[in-house]
Amino acid sequence: MTTFVQSIRYEDRVLTILDQTRLPQEEHYEVIADLAQAVEAIKQLRVRGAPAISLFGGFVLVQEAYRFEAALPVYKQALLETSATLLATRPTAVNLRNVLNQLNPIIQDGTSVEEIRERLEKRTVALYDQDAQTSRQIGIHALELFQSGDRILTICNAGSIATAAYGTALAPFYIAKERGIELSVFASETRPLLQGARLTTWELQRAGIDVTLITDNMVAHTLKEKQIDAIIVGADRITRNGDTANKIGTFQLALLAQAFGIPFYVAAPLSTFDFSLVSGDAIEIEERDPQEVTTVQGVATAPEGVAVFNPAFDVTPHTLITGIITELGVITQPNEETIEQLTGLQPLG
Amino acid sequence: MTTFVQSIRYEDRVLTILDQTRLPQEEHYEVIADLAQAVEAIKQLRVRGAPAISLFGGFVLVQEAYRFEAALPVYKQALLETSATLLATRPTAVNLRNVLNQLNPIIQDGTSVEEIRERLEKRTVALYDQDAQTSRQIGIHALELFQSGDRILTICNAGSIATAAYGTALAPFYIAKERGIELSVFASETRPLLQGARLTTWELQRAGIDVTLITDNMVAHTLKEKQIDAIIVGADRITRNGDTANKIGTFQLALLAQAFGIPFYVAAPLSTFDFSLVSGDAIEIEERDPQEVTTVQGVATAPEGVAVFNPAFDVTPHTLITGIITELGVITQPNEETIEQLTGLQPLG
Repeated sequence: MTTFVQSIRYEDRVLTILDQTRLPQEEHYEVIADLAQAVEAIKQLRVRGAPAISLFGGFVLVQEAYRFEAALPVYKQALLETSATLLATRPTAVNLRNVLNQLNPIIQDGTSVEEIRERLEKRTVALYDQDAQTSRQIGIHALELFQSGDRILTICNAGSIATAAYGTALAPFYIAKERGIELSVFASETRPLLQGARLTTWELQRAGIDVTLITDNMVAHTLKEKQIDAIIVGADRITRNGDTANKIGTFQLALLAQAFGIPFYVAAPLSTFDFSLVSGDAIEIEERDPQEVTTVQGVATAPEGVAVFNPAFDVTPHTLITGIITELGVITQPNEETIEQLTGLQPLG
Repeated sequence: MTTFVQSIRYEDRVLTILDQTRLPQEEHYEVIADLAQAVEAIKQLRVRGAPAISLFGGFVLVQEAYRFEAALPVYKQALLETSATLLATRPTAVNLRNVLNQLNPIIQDGTSVEEIRERLEKRTVALYDQDAQTSRQIGIHALELFQSGDRILTICNAGSIATAAYGTALAPFYIAKERGIELSVFASETRPLLQGARLTTWELQRAGIDVTLITDNMVAHTLKEKQIDAIIVGADRITRNGDTANKIGTFQLALLAQAFGIPFYVAAPLSTFDFSLVSGDAIEIEERDPQEVTTVQGVATAPEGVAVFNPAFDVTPHTLITGIITELGVITQPNEETIEQLTGLQPLG
């Protein structure tokens, strides 16, 4: 078995995170003492990755449940306020909302402080284990699409440190390592925040998985010169027809995969699907601080006052996606029908 | 008339360069005292841009010609060795070779040290003036391809500081500015060395030309969201059939232009053509120091010891190029025949 870096640890009722803003220079673990520190860790992206943030939120709630002491009605109200505070850190993060929506009823329905504590803890640990299992299944299904010796390109970090374990887009590489199958990974550095350079290379290198770093403008030349066999990416949100919002740069990878005639895969748990959205046109793209583009790790790279366009995500049309890899299997040629066939999920609308 | 930053100055036999590695933080000019310093300036990209490097190489040879003192045969041999040393700094850049190929016969055929010095100087100054004229003509021809209000994307810096004046890919923007035609430029930052972020934005901003900075993974999304009308790039070397070597990232811009159905232009003087090469397959791509990829301006962005692929250039097949804009006019649908028609140049082979 591969030994993972655990970006979130909950042991003996102590919650610890790997501070991802300090990677790769420093592998620093931070004990989360209270709610204020937890909120700050989410906001500063010290903990990141939609699944990891949601599990972190759950454990923070558990920890606060063991910390508070009050009569039951006051206790319940205080814990529900904590839950609301956590949700407010990431109002659009579907995964965090899903986890809190499973934990809030335990608080509301609890008949004693001790019962609430135990049930919250048990459920959150179960969700954590489930997330690792989900990622493992994604990895197993993805690996079926690759052959020993394949060279596969990815962007951003959809890795073990963004989930409980394994990751999504990176999961097949861990499973391949377990099974002695040789795969080579090419990581696109992923400006502006360099998750590919800082995080993907770091976690794969640590796991002894072959990884080569390139910058984001080297993709086409690398596809050609290194004879890349496939591209695999994670997802932030997938709409009903398979259109996929993911880290900025994903869309052009899909176009380049098409130009080279190689498959383009999206790896994501079913919890990433948002059936309330008909297509990618409905996804609003967050624009982030121009300073992310005009600096790298605090160093200025552009003149003062230059105009900047800094979209955080882009949308890849489903027609460019060869397959969406979920914990239940691969949806090939994703569209509304094929997605419904595999997931059994019904559109909400 | 636009006032240009002069990246290379030769006045009173003193050669000065604008140190482009210090931009945009500092506008620092460096006096070049000897050959070792000149070679270092090229290697460190303190002076950069194929035309600028070639003119710089010429002036360095002139300066060395005035510095050496020896009997004619020894003098000639020493100068030819200097010329060879300069050529070896940038094997991919054909312009430098072209300039040195014009200067070497002056050395070989010279009948006195003084004659060689004077002829070298006169020829190099003429080449410098010619380069500014050439760039201006490129800008005028390129501008005919654009309409007022157009949004045009570029990579790297094929700007005034990469030539004697105007630049190649950026020349139309200066001519448009002179003529009161509104064009908007989108500059891709161009990792690893950030010539787009550091240099293109700097020189266009300085000239009052509208420019917006993006990172290299934002191109497809920007083409779509900002409704970009065309892409224009420079060139390091163009082969007989129109295949074009240019800064890494150019090839994928051409593929993305094709995917979006917008024109992709290469702006380059005739001196960029290398008729000794049948096609781009014959171009050897220089790989540079991995540290360029694992750091940004000296700050580490990736873990120690990670494998890196760092090609400096890539090759765009002529079939992806809508037109090559030269000082003589535009070669549409470039191939061996159309190139020969416009240039009147005959293949060497």
